[in-house]
Amino acid sequence: MIYLDNAATTKPLAEAFERARIYAEEKFYNPSALYSEGYAMQGELKTARSALLSKVTDESAFELIFTSCGTESDNQAIFAFARRGNAVTTTGEHSAVFAAFAELKNRGIAEPRYAPLQKDGRVDVDKLLSLVDEKTSFVSVMHVNNEIGSINDINTIAKLLKQKNPRTIFHSDGVQAYGKIPFKLCKEVDLYSVSAHKIGGLKGVGALIKRKSLVLSPYIIGGGQESGRRSGTENTFGIKQFEYAAESKFKDLKTDFERLKVYREKLWERLDKEVYARISPVEGTPYILTVSAIGLRGEILLHMANDKGLIVGTGSACSSNAKTRYSKVVLACGYDEKTADGVLRLSFSAQTTEEEIDQAAEILNEIGRDLKRRMQ
Amino acid sequence: MIYLDNAATTKPLAEAFERARIYAEEKFYNPSALYSEGYAMQGELKTARSALLSKVTDESAFELIFTSCGTESDNQAIFAFARRGNAVTTTGEHSAVFAAFAELKNRGIAEPRYAPLQKDGRVDVDKLLSLVDEKTSFVSVMHVNNEIGSINDINTIAKLLKQKNPRTIFHSDGVQAYGKIPFKLCKEVDLYSVSAHKIGGLKGVGALIKRKSLVLSPYIIGGGQESGRRSGTENTFGIKQFEYAAESKFKDLKTDFERLKVYREKLWERLDKEVYARISPVEGTPYILTVSAIGLRGEILLHMANDKGLIVGTGSACSSNAKTRYSKVVLACGYDEKTADGVLRLSFSAQTTEEEIDQAAEILNEIGRDLKRRMQ
Repeated sequence: MIYLDNAATTKPLAEAFERARIYAEEKFYNPSALYSEGYAMQGELKTARSALLSKVTDESAFELIFTSCGTESDNQAIFAFARRGNAVTTTGEHSAVFAAFAELKNRGIAEPRYAPLQKDGRVDVDKLLSLVDEKTSFVSVMHVNNEIGSINDINTIAKLLKQKNPRTIFHSDGVQAYGKIPFKLCKEVDLYSVSAHKIGGLKGVGALIKRKSLVLSPYIIGGGQESGRRSGTENTFGIKQFEYAAESKFKDLKTDFERLKVYREKLWERLDKEVYARISPVEGTPYILTVSAIGLRGEILLHMANDKGLIVGTGSACSSNAKTRYSKVVLACGYDEKTADGVLRLSFSAQTTEEEIDQAAEILNEIGRDLKRRMQ
Repeated sequence: MIYLDNAATTKPLAEAFERARIYAEEKFYNPSALYSEGYAMQGELKTARSALLSKVTDESAFELIFTSCGTESDNQAIFAFARRGNAVTTTGEHSAVFAAFAELKNRGIAEPRYAPLQKDGRVDVDKLLSLVDEKTSFVSVMHVNNEIGSINDINTIAKLLKQKNPRTIFHSDGVQAYGKIPFKLCKEVDLYSVSAHKIGGLKGVGALIKRKSLVLSPYIIGGGQESGRRSGTENTFGIKQFEYAAESKFKDLKTDFERLKVYREKLWERLDKEVYARISPVEGTPYILTVSAIGLRGEILLHMANDKGLIVGTGSACSSNAKTRYSKVVLACGYDEKTADGVLRLSFSAQTTEEEIDQAAEILNEIGRDLKRRMQ
């Protein structure tokens, strides 16, 4: 089985799992407990926090709050800071941001505004800034698009935003970027969401990176864990496994990045251009190659590939629940419905091999030609 | 090391961990994915849902939504249903409910009302009902008190409540009851929160049991997982481990219940009555024995016990973050501050042995007498 749906979820790193399992065995104590074994867990959480944070930013200016997933991190950021007036995002966001923005309107909290995407999937920065005014409380722009892999220059966007309105809070969903693409957050990025299971961590663990000086009103409240910012007993085992998985991913980040860029281009070169058109920009993340078999249905190809031992995605796994037929993001880039309907997302991990890329190209060409023949 | 702080968290069951680990290895797929391996995960979640639900209620009338913890389940229930008018709870609730009720007031959502406890830690049902009127949208009464172990008869309370106001939604925090005490939920209980890590599951997994006909507005929104009621990729590994841990706990629930009742009474009998006064009622959960070393500080005794290899709690681990010196619940039962300050919570699991009980009594007597001598 060749697994090319790593943007949906990745296989947890076995080594990180083994290293962390002591926290599901002897070191199972409640980190809020007052005895030494419990208190020691706070130290373990601190180490994890620091390790995860230092990879992408300056620890003196930022802090990290553990959450249960990227979606919770996004919800926490949005509902804590989108206030009276308006809030601006893009038409290409993950549903965790998109649905929360819709809710801002439903609940009468703030007027949501949506900046359009360029053809390459990046937000149109001029148009985004033109939506920002003195009443803009919050702006959210994803770092790496989960459906086609475009990379927004969030540091530049954050700086331009703060020039226009220094009081506006800037958030970015970094779920497809963290541990995959090289970057450092600048201090103008107030909030940044990450998730463990996209980089070899376990499902059920996420984090929100936050500028220290920003006061957060917590979304999940109760016992006051995470210094009062996220209640609920901390998932020590999951958090430590995330720490170890991230350690491994960041260690080889640059070489993986360059290697996967070569693989992605090799895969694209091998695909039959009579069947597939490229959607993902060359400048996008090397972890995602989105193509469209224009005139064919991506979902049918997905099942045909599945039968041949190749696992691929169509747009976002998270939006499959919404029963939307088309890739929302591909439409938002300005492609027509026929193109959006033919979308296949091929997404890689550091474990993806060149041999798998070769085999995947072969299977995709075979099924694409086969379906095209049958459709004529 | 003797671990008697199982109400704070339990050691994950090794057998359940081993059985579940396939979901962190080969079966790591995203349950929202369209290919057969992803779709199969939906089946695995369904099995878990059904197994966890059927243990405590009729599956035709109730459904179960996975969350990240008991706190999230409580927050979800409260913020979805406490509306205009007032909402009623007790002075003995876990901070996940207590803090959320305070927030109802802060956010101007509803007026919180608090029913007092009786000396035995159960809510005064007459007084609770007298707070309910035609404007009461929501009532929350915990099933088993986490600090002293009192058991509220939530089925009877729910029925009486519905007689007074059939439109009021009834919720119960069942975190210390589920998998520990024998009961079945009646249909008047609309919502019920449970947590995995209190019964040998992993931290980071909880659930909200909900009457099917009740429409829930989700608290964490996005990709529409859990049939639109809880977004975020499902924590399949944690959920399956919860399923297996619960299976094991429910299988022996009644014999564990009877055995721990004997252990709890044995521990109480052995404790020096010159040092310790009993707080936990005989009718409470056999999993908790709360005592007070009146005139001594529980926190000092906790550290002295710790030094001798005995781990105990003082009140709730979750409230240790709040820096409150006294057990909130013990005060709410009508005890004075001196009694509340001397509180030690001794809490058991199915793995607790009779030998540990004997040793714990010896250590507690030794340190209690020692500290008392030094205080004179």
